[in-house]
Amino acid sequence: MEVVAAQSVVTAEHVEAFRSILGEANVWMDEETLQYYSHDETEHLHFLPDVVLKPRTPEEISAIMQICHRDRIPVTPRGAGTGLSGGALPHLGGVLISTDRMNSILHIDERNLQVTTEPGVITEVLMDAVKEKGLFYPPDPSSKGSCFIGGNISENSGGPKAVKYGVVKDYVLNLQIVLPTGEIIWTGANVLKNSTGYNLTQLVVGSEGTLGIVTKIVLKLVPLPKHDLLMLVPFRSLEQAGEAVSAIFRAGFTPSALELVEVDALQIVSKFVDSSAVPITEDTAAHLIIEVDGNHIETLMSEMEAISELLMQYDIGELYFADDAQQKAELWKLRRRTAEAVKVNGYTIEEDTVVPRAELPALIRGVKELGVKYQFHAVCYGHAGDGNLHIRINKPGLSNSQDDPQMIEGLRALFALVKSLGGTISGEHGIGLIQKGYMDIVFEETNLQLMRAIKKAFDPHNILNAGKIFD
Amino acid sequence: MEVVAAQSVVTAEHVEAFRSILGEANVWMDEETLQYYSHDETEHLHFLPDVVLKPRTPEEISAIMQICHRDRIPVTPRGAGTGLSGGALPHLGGVLISTDRMNSILHIDERNLQVTTEPGVITEVLMDAVKEKGLFYPPDPSSKGSCFIGGNISENSGGPKAVKYGVVKDYVLNLQIVLPTGEIIWTGANVLKNSTGYNLTQLVVGSEGTLGIVTKIVLKLVPLPKHDLLMLVPFRSLEQAGEAVSAIFRAGFTPSALELVEVDALQIVSKFVDSSAVPITEDTAAHLIIEVDGNHIETLMSEMEAISELLMQYDIGELYFADDAQQKAELWKLRRRTAEAVKVNGYTIEEDTVVPRAELPALIRGVKELGVKYQFHAVCYGHAGDGNLHIRINKPGLSNSQDDPQMIEGLRALFALVKSLGGTISGEHGIGLIQKGYMDIVFEETNLQLMRAIKKAFDPHNILNAGKIFD
Repeated sequence: MEVVAAQSVVTAEHVEAFRSILGEANVWMDEETLQYYSHDETEHLHFLPDVVLKPRTPEEISAIMQICHRDRIPVTPRGAGTGLSGGALPHLGGVLISTDRMNSILHIDERNLQVTTEPGVITEVLMDAVKEKGLFYPPDPSSKGSCFIGGNISENSGGPKAVKYGVVKDYVLNLQIVLPTGEIIWTGANVLKNSTGYNLTQLVVGSEGTLGIVTKIVLKLVPLPKHDLLMLVPFRSLEQAGEAVSAIFRAGFTPSALELVEVDALQIVSKFVDSSAVPITEDTAAHLIIEVDGNHIETLMSEMEAISELLMQYDIGELYFADDAQQKAELWKLRRRTAEAVKVNGYTIEEDTVVPRAELPALIRGVKELGVKYQFHAVCYGHAGDGNLHIRINKPGLSNSQDDPQMIEGLRALFALVKSLGGTISGEHGIGLIQKGYMDIVFEETNLQLMRAIKKAFDPHNILNAGKIFD
Repeated sequence: MEVVAAQSVVTAEHVEAFRSILGEANVWMDEETLQYYSHDETEHLHFLPDVVLKPRTPEEISAIMQICHRDRIPVTPRGAGTGLSGGALPHLGGVLISTDRMNSILHIDERNLQVTTEPGVITEVLMDAVKEKGLFYPPDPSSKGSCFIGGNISENSGGPKAVKYGVVKDYVLNLQIVLPTGEIIWTGANVLKNSTGYNLTQLVVGSEGTLGIVTKIVLKLVPLPKHDLLMLVPFRSLEQAGEAVSAIFRAGFTPSALELVEVDALQIVSKFVDSSAVPITEDTAAHLIIEVDGNHIETLMSEMEAISELLMQYDIGELYFADDAQQKAELWKLRRRTAEAVKVNGYTIEEDTVVPRAELPALIRGVKELGVKYQFHAVCYGHAGDGNLHIRINKPGLSNSQDDPQMIEGLRALFALVKSLGGTISGEHGIGLIQKGYMDIVFEETNLQLMRAIKKAFDPHNILNAGKIFD
């Protein structure tokens, strides 16, 4: 299954050239560094790069890429390494380019509600910086405290706020990228509407570092909402929780977050962060976390009340309102650390399915049935308002989804179900290395050929993050 | 400047084949029909196709495309012909495919807030159909009463609501397209979040019918807001009107529409539709039209009040509130028919510039200066909230932007200004035939090469709407 076009060919001369471009201190070949950059947050996978480079400017990256293009050296771009699909894994060896040092917010444009930033800025740092100016950058993946904004662009990340505010692609106005050939271009313009040629900006967003290395990012911002309210609703039936999600939207509400966590995950994460903030009774099957935001507190309160009333038709437990900032933070901490908690507890295989939101109950039911059939245990949680369900799988003795024929068969059955529900295999984590074997389930061969042809147009020697998304 | 790759080669045998695919009644070659399809709403341009085909199904289009691909026959897809950049003009002759008959709304999915439609549905018909279910499809170009949703996809249309709700690209979830080779694919999935391979959906949106013929469209819908308020603000200075636009957003408001019309255009359109609904005093320089929408009328009223207060710092005339549905409709009619009115009055050359919104005053000032230098008269109006300024140009004796070296020089100067302000040459009309000569101002040759390579990946024989966007 591995791509063979690019083979590692980093020589001493190459290393010397990289040192003369970047300076000695930014070319790393020691064992510890190579080990550190050999993995990300994807299951249990490790691949050693030959050399780790830490450039500071697009021009330096351009010089590196010209050499790698000429000599067909595999290049893996990497942000903070928080990815869940192996997009930043140097599985072919070669050069790993880290954006660690490209970490400046270049300009917060308060006149136009835009920010220009380098890719190595931590997403939460960026969010906080614009917040200080009364502005809001909404896409907030669970890893926002450690992930880089550049990685968010590459994976088209989402997060809880996507349900109201959209995902990364909805905020990217313009990108500076270094092409695999070394050329530096801007993909678009710093404008809110653009019908000027093919949308290269949107093509690069979510392309997982295979088309170019993002070196500058212009993002749209919106006014920061003044208030938000947060409520937790325990359900006695997981399927009813799924049904309620769809009902809330059909009734005309657009929450700023609508998250679902089923009880197994709840128990694991509560223990993990040692919190009893969220009461889990014996008959709890799942929690919905519902947030509304806006500028008028009375409006929000009447909205929350109306949503609560709507939910009374379901078999729910006692509603829990987060009264102050601390209670809200506690609730969100539980939600955000769920992935980490279940992983540590043996749920090492992670899926990122997404379906039209009314199909959530069918998906959840299907996951449980497949678990019985293929002998795995799955917990579900995620951005239910978007139909984006994270499924974490525990199959004792199995750390990767790739090592076991039965597991692969089970995942193929899961993705076939997702496809039959009108969905697809990744909502916000990307395909990377670990999902590419399943692309044939959701795409015709023609689609994949088009994608390969686009890749070739950008990267004729197939050096940049080759073998990701597709072979 | 014309492309030469594809030459018209429609023979009697081809026509016979088309008849056997579509039936006699859907193959048109009479003079009147060919004349009708020889133009759209772009300046004064006419090109006769050799034959007009009216298929009903993707499979029929596929059969047609297989023949055209094999024999390298130019194909021009066409919606309602309301385009303003010549995208639907059959400038190479050959086959014109009209989507007139593909006019069914296939499924309004109230559970998932989605609609699946064919491309030949009039945008306003679609909007009204979902409105009946309490749902909202926001992108509403001025031509919504006559344009097709398929054309909106091709041009990535905007409209007044874009300022709050985004443009067409923000609502397209999935597209069925027929490729130039005749293959039929779906570009994505019916989901709100998607990180599964390259975003072919977003690549096709705004590609002006050059990559495939859109045959089915899945759109995201949102809950219909219950209320809206509309206000008109006369300014005594055009530049101050531009400044006020930016100030409104900086103060944290997000109107659902924020339109600007300068006084020359106002006077022309008032006469054109024979309306005195909007008072134009002697010292009026421009009007801002400001709309807010939402579910809580009190919230909207307090927002409108706060915006009014904010505007008091400018030199404005008496505010005018549209009190009822009829007054609102009258105001919007004046705005929506502005383009038509100024065109009839000699402003035949149309530009669709877009800049970061705070740069509007600089752009407006620049347009006036360039008019003096290059001897044209320009009126400005448009979606000021998005920085999307329509500029209509009257140069006596000149019906097209392409026939006069001085006009071309003036437009190059205008677009260079737009570029220097961080903007680009088309916000929502597309590049089509008439703007492609200016693409070098806003893009590097590398960008254009990438676009051409993408085009080639989709259309190896360069038959589908060839010579649009770029040569």
